[in-house]
Amino acid sequence: MDGVKAIVFDTFGTVVDWRSSLIADFSTWGAARFPAADWPGLVDAWREAYKPSMDEVRRKVRPWTNLDDLQRDSLRPLAPRFGLAGLTPGEAEYMIRGWHRLDPWPDAVAGLTRLRTKYIIGPLSNGNVALLVNMARRAGLPWDMVFATELFRHYKPDPETYLGAAGLLGLAPGEVMMAAAHNNDLHAARACGLRTCFFARPTEYGPLQSRDFAADSDWDVVAADIGDVATRMGV
Amino acid sequence: MDGVKAIVFDTFGTVVDWRSSLIADFSTWGAARFPAADWPGLVDAWREAYKPSMDEVRRKVRPWTNLDDLQRDSLRPLAPRFGLAGLTPGEAEYMIRGWHRLDPWPDAVAGLTRLRTKYIIGPLSNGNVALLVNMARRAGLPWDMVFATELFRHYKPDPETYLGAAGLLGLAPGEVMMAAAHNNDLHAARACGLRTCFFARPTEYGPLQSRDFAADSDWDVVAADIGDVATRMGV
Repeated sequence: MDGVKAIVFDTFGTVVDWRSSLIADFSTWGAARFPAADWPGLVDAWREAYKPSMDEVRRKVRPWTNLDDLQRDSLRPLAPRFGLAGLTPGEAEYMIRGWHRLDPWPDAVAGLTRLRTKYIIGPLSNGNVALLVNMARRAGLPWDMVFATELFRHYKPDPETYLGAAGLLGLAPGEVMMAAAHNNDLHAARACGLRTCFFARPTEYGPLQSRDFAADSDWDVVAADIGDVATRMGV
Repeated sequence: MDGVKAIVFDTFGTVVDWRSSLIADFSTWGAARFPAADWPGLVDAWREAYKPSMDEVRRKVRPWTNLDDLQRDSLRPLAPRFGLAGLTPGEAEYMIRGWHRLDPWPDAVAGLTRLRTKYIIGPLSNGNVALLVNMARRAGLPWDMVFATELFRHYKPDPETYLGAAGLLGLAPGEVMMAAAHNNDLHAARACGLRTCFFARPTEYGPLQSRDFAADSDWDVVAADIGDVATRMGV
């Protein structure tokens, strides 16, 4: 991997464990107020709405809308289906901000801290700047720069996002490595000329996980977790 | 200062000592190659070209051009005037990258580290992302997010820059404080609704310093340096 100067990370699922974090957060917060809530069902359905909501923006059916605002719209119809009838706007905001409070996978902070000694690191995530900054502060993610795709007004896998991060760093695409637990993210990054790094997060979707148990291509680096990425990258 | 959630910092002169850093860097680097160079003269003249070059972009006389590229153009006519005849493109790049290698003022890293425990912090600088990221890594500036005005394709003091930083953080302008050693930056920030914080850097321009020895308005916070900002902000 000679020539790689920066490593950018998919974030939801790759760096942070969104599903366990949200279920734990909401179960505690809402236990008394919504005793009949199906929190795993709500979280899974909310995540299911994530990609279609971004695709509306990507296809320009909908003008640029950041992730917090997409999540707000996605939550509204789901609330009554999963036992949250009467959810107030303030309560919905608490839940939307739940995406700012996700816990890192156990290897993430230590692995990123090692990588940062040699490489510029940042998230390249469909989360918005506020979300990613709040997440990093709470979780201790030592980013050099936050490449929210909001900066480019495009969502991954649009090429503007991968090329945008390289461009802001003044680097050629081949000097940037995309790291993700999702093969499709890496296919899109490779098509833009970035280097690629995969490690699996086989419990990301809990019992619903149906893919991304292993690399589906000859990615430049295939590792066990972020600590192993650091080892393989020589730090 | 109740309600302030983020503090953004002007960078050149406010956080880093560009003049002393560049003169020391170039004097050492170029001693043998350019024995007749006038390094202080070159650095002062280069900085003198900074604002007019950005103003061309701000007035849309020139399309968006980031600071590294403006500095490249500004350096070219200055080189022969200050004893750098025969400067090669590679040597010019070294000098342009000198702006990525600036040293912080002595109080900066410790003061920012204190402030970060309570506030989101970032540069709000006309430097480009690559410059500010490289500078932060080298100098140990603990930014949460790098608000290069390049992200907005506007240079300060355009309002898009101040409002853009607040917008990306999902904050109202009054929840963001602009900190600068330059009164004019604070006048522009205040006009956008931001809170304001001044501290003087009376040696920024060396013997050429003619202004900004003191606050020229009733800024929300007037401090001695970044450590004193932290004290006044209760951290």
